[in-house]
Amino acid sequence: MSIVRAEISISLDGFGAGPNQSPEEPLGERGEDLHDWVVATESWRRQNGKEGGTTGPDSEMAERMHDGVGAFVMGRGMFGGGPGPWDESWTGWWGDDPPYHAAVFVLTHHPREPVEMQGGTTFHFVTDGVDAAIEQASAAAGDADILVAGGPSAINQVLAAGLLDELRLHIVPILLGDGERLLKDVGDPELEPVEVVGTPGATHVRYRVAR
Amino acid sequence: MSIVRAEISISLDGFGAGPNQSPEEPLGERGEDLHDWVVATESWRRQNGKEGGTTGPDSEMAERMHDGVGAFVMGRGMFGGGPGPWDESWTGWWGDDPPYHAAVFVLTHHPREPVEMQGGTTFHFVTDGVDAAIEQASAAAGDADILVAGGPSAINQVLAAGLLDELRLHIVPILLGDGERLLKDVGDPELEPVEVVGTPGATHVRYRVAR
Repeated sequence: MSIVRAEISISLDGFGAGPNQSPEEPLGERGEDLHDWVVATESWRRQNGKEGGTTGPDSEMAERMHDGVGAFVMGRGMFGGGPGPWDESWTGWWGDDPPYHAAVFVLTHHPREPVEMQGGTTFHFVTDGVDAAIEQASAAAGDADILVAGGPSAINQVLAAGLLDELRLHIVPILLGDGERLLKDVGDPELEPVEVVGTPGATHVRYRVAR
Repeated sequence: MSIVRAEISISLDGFGAGPNQSPEEPLGERGEDLHDWVVATESWRRQNGKEGGTTGPDSEMAERMHDGVGAFVMGRGMFGGGPGPWDESWTGWWGDDPPYHAAVFVLTHHPREPVEMQGGTTFHFVTDGVDAAIEQASAAAGDADILVAGGPSAINQVLAAGLLDELRLHIVPILLGDGERLLKDVGDPELEPVEVVGTPGATHVRYRVAR
């Protein structure tokens, strides 16, 4: 059965991005450190066309991230956009062959035609809110899952709207002190931890969300 | 070797107490829910003079809480005090025979003579800051550990002062939305997860703190 999943790395003090996000530091100050555990893995490196890397539980977590996913939803910032209208020459942070290989629905206030990339990734721009984005992603995903890939604000919106079935958190043992907070203004969802795996790099917890 | 430990249950959104703390609700709105996982256990119930309860990993966590502890440090609120001077007839939330059975050093701005309770617990009131409290607790504990038992603010102070060796978190799958935040304004300590145990009631993570 198709479910809506979200997956994100957060600091132990609850931030999914550090303070002062900018084009130079899209994840904010020290925000990149949230991904140290994953970019070191064999699985992530292979998915991104690189060799080497660590094997073990972190690599298995990275392997499962896109497993069974038929469509993605992400915030404007994760695609690579600022607050204004689109510069149509800009196709995001993810290079010519983004690691999604499926339809990606980008939450934005500014309309834009779909952008088709190499490797099966097409970015669609959704201006009528998170419900519409999930609905369109659901149609694209068919029997496969939908992954809300970030950032924190996009995941918060989906959770607050009661549209999330599963939240996969990677709790990284760093403190960012400030930034974009996950689980803020999301109401009172019922969360049930169904899987916990600890490594030096992160505490991986999978929560089922009652809806 | 004697170390300084801290142990606390927090919500998944990072609060160690809910909003609107009051004499009726010392842990704030829904703050008591943070302790559902522990008060259900056989170990906690036995330590508090009750029968029954659940066995398993949660009970083992509860069993270890006071293991090897020679002295405690806690905030004024956890002892049971408001912001003003002491009402000397008031001996705290913990009854005639508190579950500490050792010296307890209470952080406060208001001096007070020590209060000796049944079962070996004596509350000492420390008005000259967290360094002094840890120093006095260290002298009392000898070769045993010091446990900073809460609340969030007391633990934050000890962590910010660079005096903590180990942080044991019980991350409870509830969202409090507001309240007293753990890990706020504590600087940038180096944390290393050394043990992770997951149960339906909490994700138990033990962090070593570099100092």
